Amino acid sequence: MIVSRPEKVEPLIIDEGKIEKRILIGSKDGAKNFVMRLFTLKPGASTPHHSHDWEHEIFVVKGKIMARSENGDYEVEEGSFIFVPANEKHQFVNVGEQIAEFICVIPYIPGNE
Amino acid sequence: MIVSRPEKVEPLIIDEGKIEKRILIGSKDGAKNFVMRLFTLKPGASTPHHSHDWEHEIFVVKGKIMARSENGDYEVEEGSFIFVPANEKHQFVNVGEQIAEFICVIPYIPGNE
Repeated sequence: MIVSRPEKVEPLIIDEGKIEKRILIGSKDGAKNFVMRLFTLKPGASTPHHSHDWEHEIFVVKGKIMARSENGDYEVEEGSFIFVPANEKHQFVNVGEQIAEFICVIPYIPGNE
Repeated sequence: MIVSRPEKVEPLIIDEGKIEKRILIGSKDGAKNFVMRLFTLKPGASTPHHSHDWEHEIFVVKGKIMARSENGDYEVEEGSFIFVPANEKHQFVNVGEQIAEFICVIPYIPGNE
């Protein structure tokens, strides 16, 4: 069993520090099927408005996020969950005044955690 | 995109209500690779001390949990994450005085979400 905390995981710095991405559980740990990442967004920060051929399973840990989807926008808060099917265009924006955080699980694809 | 909240998901009642299990994202939603579940444990509640041939990727959302593993016990709180490799014996006990909640992601195996 591996037990740890996000603050012990070195972040990947994205968009000049507006976003931090941490691979909490991935191939380095022997996880072969899916990868658990934690994203931290400063107020106003937004992820790319894009699509790809794998899904996201997301759980909002902290803050207020606007989720843009092909069927409209949703404002979600701590405790909400989001399923983004493969190939659907999506984007997440921190629309709150505090840090926003969400767990985002993806299938394991070598080189893409 | 599917966006929802745990309180809108009908729970499976376990151990006379000491534990509630909610499938947040699973095959019903078109998720083909892995399943996101949310477990809610009352104080003192414990999951089975067991093993199986699939892994767990866990994120603690709320409360204080004792994680029993083959390499010792860990007391964890909100924000901690846990990887349980396939075939390792494990158990989770709510050792706090409040409700404990954790996300637990497993590979999709038909009939076992």
